Formats: sequence, structure tokens, C-alpha cells
Amino acid sequence: MTAKPQAALVLGVGPLAGLGSALAQRFAAAGLQVFIAGRSPAKLALVAQAIAGQGGAATPVIADATCEADVLRLLATVAEAGGELAIATYNVDSNMPAPFLDTDLATFTQLWQQNSLGAFLFGREVIKQMLPRQRGTLIFTGATASLRAKPPFTAFAAAKAGVRALAQGMAREFGPQGIHVVHAVIDGVIDGDRARGQFPKFVEAKGRDGLLQAAAIAETYWQLHCQHPSAWTHELDLRPFKEPF
Amino acid sequence: MTAKPQAALVLGVGPLAGLGSALAQRFAAAGLQVFIAGRSPAKLALVAQAIAGQGGAATPVIADATCEADVLRLLATVAEAGGELAIATYNVDSNMPAPFLDTDLATFTQLWQQNSLGAFLFGREVIKQMLPRQRGTLIFTGATASLRAKPPFTAFAAAKAGVRALAQGMAREFGPQGIHVVHAVIDGVIDGDRARGQFPKFVEAKGRDGLLQAAAIAETYWQLHCQHPSAWTHELDLRPFKEPF
Amino acid sequence: MTAKPQAALVLGVGPLAGLGSALAQRFAAAGLQVFIAGRSPAKLALVAQAIAGQGGAATPVIADATCEADVLRLLATVAEAGGELAIATYNVDSNMPAPFLDTDLATFTQLWQQNSLGAFLFGREVIKQMLPRQRGTLIFTGATASLRAKPPFTAFAAAKAGVRALAQGMAREFGPQGIHVVHAVIDGVIDGDRARGQFPKFVEAKGRDGLLQAAAIAETYWQLHCQHPSAWTHELDLRPFKEPF
Amino acid sequence: MTAKPQAALVLGVGPLAGLGSALAQRFAAAGLQVFIAGRSPAKLALVAQAIAGQGGAATPVIADATCEADVLRLLATVAEAGGELAIATYNVDSNMPAPFLDTDLATFTQLWQQNSLGAFLFGREVIKQMLPRQRGTLIFTGATASLRAKPPFTAFAAAKAGVRALAQGMAREFGPQGIHVVHAVIDGVIDGDRARGQFPKFVEAKGRDGLLQAAAIAETYWQLHCQHPSAWTHELDLRPFKEPF
Repeated sequence: MTAKPQAALVLGVGPLAGLGSALAQRFAAAGLQVFIAGRSPAKLALVAQAIAGQGGAATPVIADATCEADVLRLLATVAEAGGELAIATYNVDSNMPAPFLDTDLATFTQLWQQNSLGAFLFGREVIKQMLPRQRGTLIFTGATASLRAKPPFTAFAAAKAGVRALAQGMAREFGPQGIHVVHAVIDGVIDGDRARGQFPKFVEAKGRDGLLQAAAIAETYWQLHCQHPSAWTHELDLRPFKEPF
Repeated sequence: MTAKPQAALVLGVGPLAGLGSALAQRFAAAGLQVFIAGRSPAKLALVAQAIAGQGGAATPVIADATCEADVLRLLATVAEAGGELAIATYNVDSNMPAPFLDTDLATFTQLWQQNSLGAFLFGREVIKQMLPRQRGTLIFTGATASLRAKPPFTAFAAAKAGVRALAQGMAREFGPQGIHVVHAVIDGVIDGDRARGQFPKFVEAKGRDGLLQAAAIAETYWQLHCQHPSAWTHELDLRPFKEPF
Repeated sequence: MTAKPQAALVLGVGPLAGLGSALAQRFAAAGLQVFIAGRSPAKLALVAQAIAGQGGAATPVIADATCEADVLRLLATVAEAGGELAIATYNVDSNMPAPFLDTDLATFTQLWQQNSLGAFLFGREVIKQMLPRQRGTLIFTGATASLRAKPPFTAFAAAKAGVRALAQGMAREFGPQGIHVVHAVIDGVIDGDRARGQFPKFVEAKGRDGLLQAAAIAETYWQLHCQHPSAWTHELDLRPFKEPF
Repeated sequence: MTAKPQAALVLGVGPLAGLGSALAQRFAAAGLQVFIAGRSPAKLALVAQAIAGQGGAATPVIADATCEADVLRLLATVAEAGGELAIATYNVDSNMPAPFLDTDLATFTQLWQQNSLGAFLFGREVIKQMLPRQRGTLIFTGATASLRAKPPFTAFAAAKAGVRALAQGMAREFGPQGIHVVHAVIDGVIDGDRARGQFPKFVEAKGRDGLLQAAAIAETYWQLHCQHPSAWTHELDLRPFKEPF
């Protein structure tokens, strides 16, 4: 084992109550130096502050996952810090429901960029950084739509299906070289400001534990990272116990 | 039933021995006015000539599936001809195998454009044209990679998985309105100039019927079009009898 | 090519308006000598009579698919008639919905016998008869439950999932030897006496073509038999255009 | 929370180095009273002794998973001990590879009994015991063949596909009532006496961590039990990092 400090990278950090934030907090709680990346400096600052308040260390990096230069710069920032990138997660998710015939070129392209293209750029650069050490965990956050395309989420599903294929191909190519690639199918609504603000009645109707707790998802991501290489998971689903599927 | 002449549209027509050409020939043999679209005027001319020689009618249209204006113009051309668009197939396929770490942004983007983006634009415009009559068949040509991502086809698989999701979402949204959307998983190598030119030993080793005959695929596409609405197929595989899977 | 007459075998023939009967009628219409097998002499007689009335030839054979001796005797009857068994379909289907905790050992066993065990015995004996000629088509009728287990159909789904696995394994083992094995996922309710008798309101609500027409399914089975060996389908779904999936 | 002691039940405990034994050891290490069930008194005694040596508590119960009376008696034994059954795993696995045409009725039936039938009986009785408390974890050990039927494992795959359907149906029916049902797809060979005795060269060729370590699988089963109800996994795969898939 190396004496280098361990680092974690979360791309797609938004609100304090969101999944990206929960992942960063979980990794920091395990003692890793966490790099949190997203587009909003204000949101990143809040998450970094919360982690610092918990005794952890978080470095915010402004980055747009759909921009190759940003992704390269992000990974360079992690490398320059001198730690070992132990776990990285791609957590960007931008759903835009729409009747199929109303979906315009810009929307279709944007969904692809934020899901598939970002996952491609991030995955490629993370693996380049992890490969020399022959270890590391790379987790992609998927959705119900990654497996099934249902209106009004057809365009979103096309983008998420692309992420799933990327994760699967990377797992097959780099697993034997020590890189643990996971695709996590998040099936349900994550509890948080967005859900409570946009669908308050839906949230109430779901009842206790009817929505995904971001911290609970983060715990499973961490356990995936801790799996022994003789028994790795490549794909799993995560849903509230009440969620129909 | 209308007295309007029936039309067929094949986007992705290349070599005379290819799948696009075979589809056009099959639809023409059934008496439909066929619109054949692709990027090469010379190839389109050869296919149109062959169909004319068989007593059929084919109209070549130069079009790039990845360009929205081209797709709009293509569908306008079909509409202006005055027939009823009975069947349309998206048959563009541009595989570019590569080790994942060598895949650059341009290649990843191009694969998405030629597979997912083109399928989105084509599907949307075809459905718009078919919907007022509440009938029509729309078939997307998929590949083994549509279902499984294996190196060195990871980027291609991401693009093809997107096509599959599009087809599935369209089927769910527009099936109840009379539009029959199919995703055909072509599992194997199609016999033709490309295969014989690039992998002659592979072709020889496969032996009789070891490669997919384009005309055989076309026959099944036609039978899918003929299915009664009470028993429609949304997805099926097509592979040579010898092909391992 | 042989000059021998072609024969078809349908195991699971019940009511005149059912799928087994429709398959037999379709194969007889194509000129094949049809062997129709099931447990009810009266029902078999009605189907045989209908086929005779259409100018076809049908031989009824009383057989219980779950009894090895019956299946052996059935295949022996076909062989002794001297024709070539060109197509055989396993069409037994006995759904018994139940809350899982109320499912008793006898019900669970019976569902397995009528679906999985019968499919195993039938498939094995049909392949033994077809293999020397290196050709023939063998189709298993599946259901929505073959792919997804939903209450109150859990025990049924376990039995149907077994049939699907059998079909897939047989296709992989015997496809390269010329035997075309298909698994058809019938997703929806087949129109007929049973549906109209048991759920008349459901049938009415479905509207025109909202239920599967047995004759439409039979047409697709026949087209599968006619596929060229260079482009065989192993699995496909069949559902009414209005059916949600 | 109850003050009752927590109990675990493992059905399918064989050799000390096997998966059943590893599961029992992991649950005992977490402080649960473990009931270990299997057909061999000698093997159960060795596992119970090992657990006792580690400071844990294990109760051996001779039971045949395919016998309803045995399963009922097994669950009664657990109930009478007075603890709360917190986790139960079905771990019986009896693979018998064979060319399909050589598979006889007895073998096909036995594979079904040991996999599907046993899983049905065990699942039903475990859920009956867990349901009044509205909590508990029930894990079924699956295999590669649960998802794909490949010769010479066709009959085995039919049996394992049945187990998967059972787990899925139970998860859908009882998840909303607090029972966490998991299907774990074990993809690869488990390291142990059987593998090392039967395929020593294969084991050597696989190299370090090329075979599944039973203890590593057990760790993931335990983490699944610890998942928060807002983010449960129903299905996941587990394979060595080098394993092709």
C-alpha cells in the first residue's frame, strides 16, 4: 500500500441536500481529500463549508462536465494535489421530460452532453489517472431510464442508456487492469430541496423512507469502493422499499 | 383505406450490396414508391438504377442524417410526392472500433451524431408525417452493441444504446396511436463488398449462410410491416444460424 | 431437398378460438400435415374438423405435455407418419395467479410441469427428430411473465422464465446444427372464448385490436419458420398496438 | 427497536471453505445467532465448530431444501429459539452440466428441485416468519446462468432463471411491507476445495483474486442487509475483477 493520501472526486455537486454533496460528505468522513466539482461556485462553497465543519477536507473546482477542457483541468487539479485518486463518481443528471414530438435539437443535444458526453470525458480522464496504479473505483449514477425508455423521458433515456453502455464497456476493458467501474441505477426520487419544492404532495404521499435518502445512496457507493477485487459488483439498483418496479 | 399510392423511405443507402439497398429493393418489389437517401450520389444512382431495372420506382435524395435541415427536406420531399409514407427505416450505421482511451471527442461525437442524433431527427419527422393517418411502420436497425458494450466498441455501443432507447420510447408513445416502431438487433456481419473487401478470410471461414444476407434481413423488415396491429413486434434479433451469441 | 411431405406439430391445442388451433390452421393452410396434441379429445376433434373443412389435414393426438411417455409417443406418431417434421410449437400455458404466500406446493409444481418440464421434454424429443436432417423450426410460446415476475404471477413467472432459458440454451446448442429455435413473448391477452367469458368488460374496454388475435400470432410464427438461415430471429415480442409495456 | 436477539439463517451450508460457511461466519461475527442448514451433519458440525471457535453461536439443522416438511421444520426451529430472524439466505446450488439431448427427466427434475423448488419453499416460509415484524432481509444466491442459458448448462439455467423470477416477484410483493429481497448473481468460480480439487490448473491460471473469495461475497451480503430502506438493492452481480463478462 502507498503512503500517499487518498483522494475522492465527485463531478456533479449541486445543492447541499443533493446526492453529489452526500457522496462528498461520505468520502470525506472516510478520511479522503475530496474534490467537488460543479457549475455553481455558491453551491460548491456551501458543500465545502459543511464538510469542513464536519472535520473533512473538500476542494471546490468549478467545472462544466460537457466541456473537455474543464474535465482535463479538473483531473489535472486532482493530480497536482499529489494524492492518489481512489474513487471518482459521475453524478451529473439533467432530466427534461417532454413529449417526443416537442423535443428540439438543442434539448436532445444538451441531454446527451450532460449525460453521455460528460460521462465519456470524465471516465476517460479518470481511468488515465488511475491506470498506472492499477486500482481505483469509478461509479456512474444511472436512473430508471437507463434501462427503460418511457415517455415523456425518451430523449433522457437515450442519453442515460449511453452512460450505461459506457460504464459497461469501461468495466470490461479496465476491470482486468484493476479499475472497478460501477453503474448504479437510482430508481426513484431523491429526497431534497428539488423534490420538496417541485412536488410537495408527491413527497408527502410517499411517506417515511419513500424517497431515496442521498446519504443512504452514498453509503452504498462507499461499500462498493470497499469491495474486495475477487467479488466486484458492476451494476446494481437502488430504490426505496416502497417503490414499485 | 386510402387510394393514395404507398411510399417507403430508407435513410442510409450506400453500396448496392448493402442493407439499405436491399431494403429499398424489397419495398419496391412490393409495389411501393421508394425514396432512398444517403450521402453518396453515385451510390444512390446505382441503387435507383437497379430498382428501375427490376421494374420498381426509386427516388434518390442526397441527405446527411446528422443534419436537421437535411432530414426536414427529406421528409418534405416524400410528402410533396403525394403518396402515403407506409414504411420508413433508419439504417445509418457507422462503427469505429477503438481502445477506449484512444477515443477522441470528435470520434465520440460523430458516432453519436450518425447513430443517436440521426435516429432522433428521422424518427421525430417520420412520426409527424405518419401520425395524422394513424398508421405506418418505422424500423431502426440496431446491432449487437445496442444491447451489450464490449471493447473496442464502447463508444459505438453508447451511440447504439441511445438508438434502442429512442425506438423503445417512440413505440410506447406512438404505438397506441397506430405507429408501429421496431428495433431490429442485427447480430453478425452483413455479407457484402465491405465485409468481403476488409475481412476476406473471416468471410470464408464463416461458410455458407454464416454471414447475414441483406435480402434476408429485408424480407423480415417487410414482414414486420405486414404484421396485424393486434400482434406487433417491437424488438427482435436477426443473426446467422451459426453465429454464437 | 427431400420429396417427403412436410409435417407440423402443435402441442397445446385447446379451444377452436385459441392459439394452438390458430397455429394448426395456419400450418395446414400452408400445406403441411398437422399433428395437433392436447388433453381434450373433444377439443382436438373440433379443431381437426375445422381444418378438414378448410381442405387441410390434421391428426389429433391425445397427449399430456407433462408426461414423458406421452411426449415420446407423440413424437413417435409423427415419425411413423413418414413426413418430415418441419415446424413444432410448444404452446401449453397454464397460468394460475395467486398471492405468493397462498401458493402451495402442488400449484407451484403443476405450473413448473406444464410450462418448464413440458417444454423440456417436447424440445428434447423434437430436436432429436429434426437433427438428422439438420433443419426444422421449434417455437416456444412465452408470456410477459417470461421476462418479468410480478405479483400475483410469481410462481407462473418462475415457470415461464424456465421455458425462456430452455429455448435460449437450445438455440445456442442446436442453431449451428440447423435447428431454428424461437422464443415468442406474447404480451397481452389473446382474444377468444376464455377472455370473453372470464373478463367481458376488460375485452370491451380494450376495443378493436386491443386483444391479440390468435391468427395474427400464427402468421408471425409461420414467417419465423420461413426466415432464411442467414438471418434468424431467436426472440421477439408480440403485443396489441395499444398494449402498454 | 426490539430487544430480541437477532438471528440469521443460511440454507445450503456445505464445506468449511464454501459460501454457505462464509455467510454463516460473517453473520456470526456480526453478533447474530446463526442457524446453518444442510444435508451433511459432518459438514455442518465443522462449520458450527469453526464459528464457535471464533466466539460465535451456530446451530446446525439437518435439512433438505427440496423437502417441504424439512423447510417447515427448519423455520419452526428458528422461531422456537425465540430470536428475530433478521437475515436469511438461500444458498443451495447444484450444477450438473450436460449436453441437452443427454439430459434425462431425473436430472432436469432434480435441478429444478434443488434450485427453484427449494427457493420457493424457503422464500415462502421465511417471509411468513418475517412479515409480522415488517422487516428482514432475504437473499438468493444466483449464478451467471440465472441470466443467460448457455450449453452445457441449459437445464441448470432453466432452474436458476426460476429462482431469479421468484426473487423478483417476492421483492415486488413484499418490499413495500418491509422485507428486503435480493438476488445476487455470482458470476465466476468460488475459490474452495471443490474448485481446487476438480480444476487445479484452472484455479492456478486464474491467478490472485481470479476466483471469488467466499468471504468477500459474504461481506457484500452483509452490507446489503445493512442498507437503509430508502435505498435498497434488489439485484447485483459479483465477479472477480479479471472475469470476462
